[in-house]
Order: sequence, then C-alpha cells, then structure tokens
Amino acid sequence: MPHQTTLPRNETGLELAIGILKQRFGDRCQTGLSIREQHGHTTTWIPNQPPDAVVFAESTEDVADIVRVAAQHKVPVIAFGTGTSLEGHVNAPAGGISIDTSRMNAILEVHAEDLDVVVQPGVTRKALNEYLRDTGLFFPIDPGADASLGGMAATRASGTNAVRYGTMRENVLSLEAVLPNGEIIRTGKRAKKSSAGYDLTRLLVGSEGTLGIITELTLKLYGIPEAMSAARCAFPTVEAACNAVILAIQTGIPIARIELLDAECVTALNNYSKLDLPVEPLLIMEFHGSHASVKEQAELFGDIAEEFGGHGFTWTASAEERNKLWQARHDGYWALLQLRPGAEAIATDVCVPISNLAEAVTRTQEQAAAMGLLAPILGHVGDGNFHATLLVDGDEERARADDFIVWLSQLAIELDGTITGEHGIGQGKMASLIKEMDGATHVMAAIKKAIDPDGIMNPGKIFSPDT
Amino acid sequence: MPHQTTLPRNETGLELAIGILKQRFGDRCQTGLSIREQHGHTTTWIPNQPPDAVVFAESTEDVADIVRVAAQHKVPVIAFGTGTSLEGHVNAPAGGISIDTSRMNAILEVHAEDLDVVVQPGVTRKALNEYLRDTGLFFPIDPGADASLGGMAATRASGTNAVRYGTMRENVLSLEAVLPNGEIIRTGKRAKKSSAGYDLTRLLVGSEGTLGIITELTLKLYGIPEAMSAARCAFPTVEAACNAVILAIQTGIPIARIELLDAECVTALNNYSKLDLPVEPLLIMEFHGSHASVKEQAELFGDIAEEFGGHGFTWTASAEERNKLWQARHDGYWALLQLRPGAEAIATDVCVPISNLAEAVTRTQEQAAAMGLLAPILGHVGDGNFHATLLVDGDEERARADDFIVWLSQLAIELDGTITGEHGIGQGKMASLIKEMDGATHVMAAIKKAIDPDGIMNPGKIFSPDT
Repeated sequence: MPHQTTLPRNETGLELAIGILKQRFGDRCQTGLSIREQHGHTTTWIPNQPPDAVVFAESTEDVADIVRVAAQHKVPVIAFGTGTSLEGHVNAPAGGISIDTSRMNAILEVHAEDLDVVVQPGVTRKALNEYLRDTGLFFPIDPGADASLGGMAATRASGTNAVRYGTMRENVLSLEAVLPNGEIIRTGKRAKKSSAGYDLTRLLVGSEGTLGIITELTLKLYGIPEAMSAARCAFPTVEAACNAVILAIQTGIPIARIELLDAECVTALNNYSKLDLPVEPLLIMEFHGSHASVKEQAELFGDIAEEFGGHGFTWTASAEERNKLWQARHDGYWALLQLRPGAEAIATDVCVPISNLAEAVTRTQEQAAAMGLLAPILGHVGDGNFHATLLVDGDEERARADDFIVWLSQLAIELDGTITGEHGIGQGKMASLIKEMDGATHVMAAIKKAIDPDGIMNPGKIFSPDT
Repeated sequence: MPHQTTLPRNETGLELAIGILKQRFGDRCQTGLSIREQHGHTTTWIPNQPPDAVVFAESTEDVADIVRVAAQHKVPVIAFGTGTSLEGHVNAPAGGISIDTSRMNAILEVHAEDLDVVVQPGVTRKALNEYLRDTGLFFPIDPGADASLGGMAATRASGTNAVRYGTMRENVLSLEAVLPNGEIIRTGKRAKKSSAGYDLTRLLVGSEGTLGIITELTLKLYGIPEAMSAARCAFPTVEAACNAVILAIQTGIPIARIELLDAECVTALNNYSKLDLPVEPLLIMEFHGSHASVKEQAELFGDIAEEFGGHGFTWTASAEERNKLWQARHDGYWALLQLRPGAEAIATDVCVPISNLAEAVTRTQEQAAAMGLLAPILGHVGDGNFHATLLVDGDEERARADDFIVWLSQLAIELDGTITGEHGIGQGKMASLIKEMDGATHVMAAIKKAIDPDGIMNPGKIFSPDT
C-alpha cells in the first residue's frame, strides 16, 4: 500500500496516558482488540490500524480532559464519529487514543425562526432529520452513509444534495472545538454572516481532526419543500448527459439532486434493486419547490434533455416512486459489489468543472478498460463530482487500482479540478495533495505546526510525514 | 481615537526598500504626499495614516517582487484596491509600501458553461458585470461601493444580495496569492467543491491582507434572472417588519434582496431622492426568477406582510421603477449626510440571528437616543445584518459615538451575533474582536505568526499589538 505508513510510536507515553484515562474514565476507556479494530478504518481497501484505547466521551469537558492527558504525554488523539469515512481518516498509524463521540448525541437547541440548530458532534444526519420532522425543517447534506455531523464537518462531506444546498462548508455556521492543548474555543456564534477575523469555522471544516476536535456544531436548516418530484432520463452518451446538465444549470433550474450513472452502474442497480432502467448513461434528478414549481422544473428539464438526445424521460411527484429510485441510488455501493461477487470495492472520487466532466468520465472509463479494471462510475454531476468504484480481486489488481487512482487524481488536476470533491485526503491521497496544491501544502503544514506543535491530532493524515 | 494606534517604524528598512522599489519600478513607485494620503484611509471617521510609498503593480510577479523587497527589509506592505473599506484597512500605522492593484484589472477567463470567471484583483464589481452583460451571466455581490474584487475578497464583503447569493465567502472558488515571503500560491482550481486539505481559500477571504496579497480570483457567476420585481411595504414597527421577514424566509421565498430602513432613513431618502415613502419602518425587496415566479414571490410576500400589519404594499416588474428604488437605497449614505449638514458620518455594522433583529434594532435606536446621538438604521435584514450611521459633529460627540459602537458590538455578542457582518475588523474593532472570539483570537494570531513571522503584511489590523 504505497499510501499508508506506520509512524513511530511513543510507547511510554501511550502506557502512561492510557493508565490515567482508565482511572479517570473507568469502563468508558476500552482497550479490547475488537473494539479497537472497530475504531480503526473498516470501510474500504485501506488496512485497519487500530488505536491503543478507545474513550467514550460524553461532554466537551470529557474531550478536553482526554486531549490534555494526550498532550501531556505527547500521544495521538483521533476523533471518531461513525467510522464511515473512506480514506483511512480514523486509523492510528502511530497508535493513540480514539475519542468516540457517539454518546455526545444531544440536539441542544433548535432555532426554527433562524433556520439553525445546535448539536453535539455524535448526532447523525438521520437522527437530526428524524428529530426535526415535526418542525417542517430539515438538514440537507446527505453523503449516503448515516454519518455523524461532527465527522461530516471534519471531512467537509457533501453528497447528492450539494448542487442546491452546498456542502458542509456552506452549512456549518460555527463550531466549538477542543484544541491540541486542551483549550476549548468557539469559532463564532449564530449570525448568518460575519467578517470578524479569520474564518476558523471553515478552517476546521475539512481539517480531518488534525487541528481540533469538534465538540459542538451550529448548522443551517431549510424548510422542507412543499413538494418534491423525481425524474430520470437515459442518454446516448455520457457527453450528451453532461451537456444537458450544463444547460439545465445555466438556465437556472434549481435542481436539488442530479446524479449520473454510467451503463455499468445501471446494470448493477437493475440487478440489485429489481429495476428495468435502460442500460445506458442515466441521469436521475430531484426537484424541490411548490407543487407548480416542481412540475415546471421537471418539464423544463425534459425539454432540455430532448435537445441532447435524452429519451425515456419520466418524472413523478409520487413519494413512493421517488423513494424507490433514491433508495436504489443509495444502495449503489452494495449493487456494485454484486457486479463481481468476491471482489473488494475501492471507492475514489474527484471533482472537475462541469464543462470538463464528459471528458473526465469518458477518459476514466477508457483508462479503466485499458488497465483491465472494472470501475463503474456514479456522479454528483451538478457539481462535476464523480466516484469510480473499483472492484478488485487480489493484490496484483489492487496495486493496479492504486496506480489507477493516482492516474485519476492527475487527470482531475489537468482538467482544472481537484483530487477529491468529498472523500478527503486521509491516508489515501497525501501524495496527490502535494501535486494539486504545490506550495499551498506548505502553508497548510505551517498552520498545522502552529496549532498542533507536537503533532498529536490525527497524525499521518492529510500530510505525509515528509511534507 | 481609542481604536487606532501608531506602531514603531523601521526607518532604515523603509528607506532602503523604497530606494530599491524606485529603481525597479521607476514612475510606478510614487512618494508624493497627496498620492500617499489617497492610499490611506479616506472613507470614514478613522484618521488617515498614509504609507511611505505607493507602487502600482501590473502583474502577480510585480506583487511578488515588491513583497520580496519588503520582506528582505522587514517593512510593511498594504494591498490597495479602491480604498472603499470602512474600518481603516488600508492605513499604514507603521508606515510601509502600499501595493495599488488597480492596474491589475484584466478579466482573464470567462467559463460560461461552468458559471465561473477568473479575474485580476483590481477588476471592480461593476466593471465585471459590464463585461459579462452579453453573456447572460452576472456576479451578484454588491457592497454598494464599486469596490475591487480583490478588496471585496480580502474583507469578506457582502451587501444587499447576500440573503440569496451569499457573501464573498461563498462566491470565491479559489485564489492566487503572494505570501509574506514572496512565494506565489494557488489555493485551488475551478472545481465547485473540494475536500483536498485545509480551506486556504476561505482563510484568505476576510484576512484583510494580513496573510497574503490576492493576485487572482476565480469567482462564481449566476445566470441573469429572466425577470426581476421590486416591492416595498411600510410597517407599524421594526418588530412587525422583522417578523414578516422571518416568515417569508421560513416559507422559502427565495428573496434576492430585503432591506429594512428605519423611519429616520426613510425621511432622509424622501428628502434626498425626492420620494414620498411613508415615514415608518420600511422594507424594500427584490425578487429574481421567471416572470411567473417573481409575480408569485411578490404576491406571497404581500400576503405575509399583511399578516403583520404591513401596509402600502406595492410591487413592480418595471425596470425603471425598480432601479429608482434601488438607486435611492444605494444613495442612502449621501441621503443620511443631508439629515445633518456639516456632520461627519461614522458607519458601523453588526449581524445577529434574525429572531433577535427586532430587539437589536429597537435597543440600538433607544441607546442612540439615550446617548443623544443621531444614528439612522439600514439593514440587510434577511441576514440579520444592519448598519447604524452615526452623524456626529465635533470631538466630544465623536467620543460618544466611539462608546456607542463599543456598546453596539457588545449588544451583538449578547444577542448571539457578531460585531461585524461585512465591514471587517481593520483598526476599528480590534478590541471588540477579542470580546467576541475570546480564545479563538489567539488561534488567529498563531496562524498569522506562522504565515507572516515578521508581521509585514498589513500590521495593526485585526489584531491589536498586544494580542
């Protein structure tokens, strides 16, 4: 695994720190192998590197206490939400203490008039929306997995709704966080905008637990739309589908979701979810608004699709049919695994300007074929963000998949895009980050060093040890 | 002036650096008093502190050259766009070199399909929109003044359109900047979203020239709406007006602009722009969308306004009437000055959650009256952001106005808001920043020190010397 390293361990520090934490937290400090492995990386190809102990925090003060002990003994602390990240973010390459925030799951304040909510980091996005249901409000960011909101902020998550509602970058109003020295800070209050000094909120969002541990979030909410409609349309080529998306967005149709599936993905969904979608590049969409507006949006999109050779366009305002379609989309990962039983899935993502998306997807398909890899493509196409899910069997194929991911990152950079739209850097993309960011990587490293001089917060992530 | 300091000057360094810059840049390096004063603060009550020299940069390389000379001799560099900032951002309390970017005014690339544009920092927002007119696209951020886009990014500007289109925070995709060591970095490319490392774009946006000098911006664009309508409505109280706004936003009406004027402002506008608006709290609005949608939005708002005692509601799709109304709003500053001929205007702004806006505005009016100050209020009310424009005559009143601004900042903090929604910290609000941000101010200062260890970039701004 060229992207994963093992870092030197501070054995003495670890032993002392864990001793103190056991005394302080009792049963809430666990060191059994099974629980430790569950708190390392479990979702994708990256090998599991378990922490040495897991402490279940129940409050900001708990987190601050744990961090102070770790700081005193110079041992790593790694924040853990639900463990659904994809690039090795929760691994412990130098060992250390995993801080499990799942018990910090209180929804502290709902400000319906201001369209915001204050939550603890362990609240998951589904739990939040369940809680909000009676208020007529919702939190739109949907990365697929039922991730914790703290983790979603830390990885700058987004997903299918981002084209309309933005990502965690746009939807976190402010944060409370514990710094590497154990100090608790707030990055702002509840004002919708501020020009009061450096934007520490946005600095922590996407910092992957390397600068501070998020202990409270103030998030934006939205009114649940009066109506939603879903639509799908097949296209002769990926390019035709992308051109329809470009025109729809330019026309100002406020599409809530617009997903591209290549023919391989469609086959996988048909098999897994018992659908009969045409086996061609497919767009699936969702529109939010008034009853009149979702009808107008769907019909407008239908006209645009026709211009680009789209066919089989159908739309529905039925909640049942809509949910069936999106459930199938969300089951995409499991559906893809069934395409090649026994294979392991390696998920990767890039993001390019949408004018370059058709080229990016087409070249990705060609490159996978040339490298003898099965790599179906799913995309949040309104943002130019797409995922290739490599289905690999055995070490030799896995090595080829590594090379493919490096190639894909390079392609994204060439096409004026980024090596990751929503998965983050973690352990998986440290080398490519330097290629994308060049000198800016050193600025990031300087900030890291200024805030975490001993490097105790999630070491071995974002920056390779030689940055 | 309690908020302004003079910092120690590096006389030898300044003399040497200016000598080198004169040799390198010839006539493009100016040291006459008049031009230097024009490059210090000129817009509000804060005294002018001119730089020692002004260099007109024509390229990123020019900026890097100037910064390298300044770095070598440890003298301040201060970026200058149009000088329309309000909190002393372009002053030179320790002397130094003003880098005038107004000649860096090229629009480098328009990517209509991707809805983005790449510009140099000296392009003004009006020049950009003039250039874009034939493309059907526009850049929405409108702080009133025809500011440079580099300056707008540096101060995290926003304005009347922010409720729908966001602020510079949401609308800068990526930046090129010159660091304090003269190195040129890029914070990203043109992808609509990215999770590749720390968000240096958002760190530079709002950093007020203290971390780097912005030399290129990639900005989001929007399709010019098919139709726009404007509306106005008077309310019996500020509270009633605020409640109408809250409900309109909760209902999901995508209002493009919604401004609150208190009765004093209305009087000023009536006098200055020859209008006959009712002298009561007034909301003026703009709606963007299809012809059908702007009609629907205006009518929906009319219904809501009625619920809260709004009266005299009128709306128009006529461009002429709409422009007249908004021109009057944009002339607000001049109109207010006429309320008290001979007085100086001191502009200040705060931003609170909209549920607290009515209380904030009411208490601000009461406090101004109690302190014997004339302070009409204008607000970008959809965001909870409002401005008090103090009209003062003489030093004693000015001192009272200072106290009032400190009081207002404290009120904003108490009401879960921020001491500035869009004007920034500059020299004017350094003390209040510490009150709002507490420990987080030290994190900002640590970042500043890591990136600019010699403190050459816009010293004496954001952080007071004792942070």
